[in-house]
Amino acid sequence: MIIRVSSHRTKECIDITHQVRDVVRESGIDRGLCHVMALHATAAIIVNENDDPNIGVDLITALDAAIPDHAGWLHDRVDNNAQAHIKASILGPSETIVVADGDLLLGTWQGVMLVELDGPRADRRVSVEVIEGS
Amino acid sequence: MIIRVSSHRTKECIDITHQVRDVVRESGIDRGLCHVMALHATAAIIVNENDDPNIGVDLITALDAAIPDHAGWLHDRVDNNAQAHIKASILGPSETIVVADGDLLLGTWQGVMLVELDGPRADRRVSVEVIEGS
Amino acid sequence: MIIRVSSHRTKECIDITHQVRDVVRESGIDRGLCHVMALHATAAIIVNENDDPNIGVDLITALDAAIPDHAGWLHDRVDNNAQAHIKASILGPSETIVVADGDLLLGTWQGVMLVELDGPRADRRVSVEVIEGS
Repeated sequence: MIIRVSSHRTKECIDITHQVRDVVRESGIDRGLCHVMALHATAAIIVNENDDPNIGVDLITALDAAIPDHAGWLHDRVDNNAQAHIKASILGPSETIVVADGDLLLGTWQGVMLVELDGPRADRRVSVEVIEGS
Repeated sequence: MIIRVSSHRTKECIDITHQVRDVVRESGIDRGLCHVMALHATAAIIVNENDDPNIGVDLITALDAAIPDHAGWLHDRVDNNAQAHIKASILGPSETIVVADGDLLLGTWQGVMLVELDGPRADRRVSVEVIEGS
Repeated sequence: MIIRVSSHRTKECIDITHQVRDVVRESGIDRGLCHVMALHATAAIIVNENDDPNIGVDLITALDAAIPDHAGWLHDRVDNNAQAHIKASILGPSETIVVADGDLLLGTWQGVMLVELDGPRADRRVSVEVIEGS
C-alpha cells in the first residue's frame, strides 16, 4: 500500500502513525512485521516521540548543526539539495515494526514520522507493507 | 517475545546478542528474519563489534561531540533529555538480522547492542520477533 | 544468498542495486521483503541516489567532518579504525526493501549502496535475503 503525505516546510517531521496503523488494521494480519519506507532520496522515516512536537524540531536543528546546508557539497552543483541526501542516508528511508494483536507494537512514547528534508512537497509517497508472521 | 535489559549508566552500549540468540533458538525457526526493537524513544539498537567494548564508548563520545547535551534543545524545557531523543532517532530503534540454520547470520565481528541514551533504567523492554522465511 | 563486493578506496559508496535486483529476480518471489546486510562492522548499507555519484562522496565528507578520524578514539589503540565502527553503527548494517511484482520497490532516485569505511577490501560479504509475503 502506498500512502501519500504532503509537507509544508523545507524541513519538518510529520507524524504518520495513524495512517500506518490504518493500513495494518485493514490488512487483517494479526501478527507479523510492518515495513514503512519513504520512496524518496531526500526524506526519511524515523520512530520516536511526537507527543512533544519539539523533538522533531530539535532533530532537524541538530542535523543542520552537524551537517550544514551548502557547505561546499559537490551535489549542490547539480541539484541544490545535497544536505537532504546526506541526512536522509544517515536517518535511513525505512523502519520495520512488529505487528501484534493486529496493531503496531510500539513503546508508549514511540510514533512513526516522515522526515521531510527538501520540502515543501505536495506528494511524498510512503510504502506501508504488512507481512504475516509464523 | 519481550526481553528485559537493565542499564547502569547515563549512556552505554549493552551487548544483548546472547539473549537475542536464545529467542531465535527457542523459536525453532530455521530460516527467516529476526527483528530486534527497543520499545523506547531514548534508546536504540545497533549491530557492531563488542569484542572491544571501547567501540561502544567511542560511539557515545562521538555522538556527544556531534550533538551536545543541553545545547538549547526545545524539548529540554519539557523533559531534560532531548539529546537522547535526537540520538535515538539517528541510530534507529531496530535492526533486522537474517536467521539461517536456526541462528543469527552475523559477521565475525558483529553483535547486537542496546544503546542506552537516558539511563540508568532498570527495565528497558526490547522486542525480539522471529519470522519464518520461504 | 551472499554476494561479494570489492572496494578500492579507503572510503567509498558502491552501488549494488543491480546485484540485489538479480537475487530478487532469481528468488522467483513476487511479493515480500528483501533484506540486505553488510556482514562487517566497518561497512554499512544505505538506500539513496547514485545517479550523481557525488552524493556518496558528499556523505563520506559529511561523516568525516562530524566524526573525525583518529580524534582520540579508544579503539584506535587496538585496531586503527574506530571511526569506521562509529560511522557504520550510525548508518546501520542493513536496509529492508519491499518486493513487488518480483522486483525491488524503490523510488525513482533510490538505489542500494554498500558504504566502505575501512577499505580497500577485496571481499566484502553482503547477505541478500528475500522473504515471501502473504
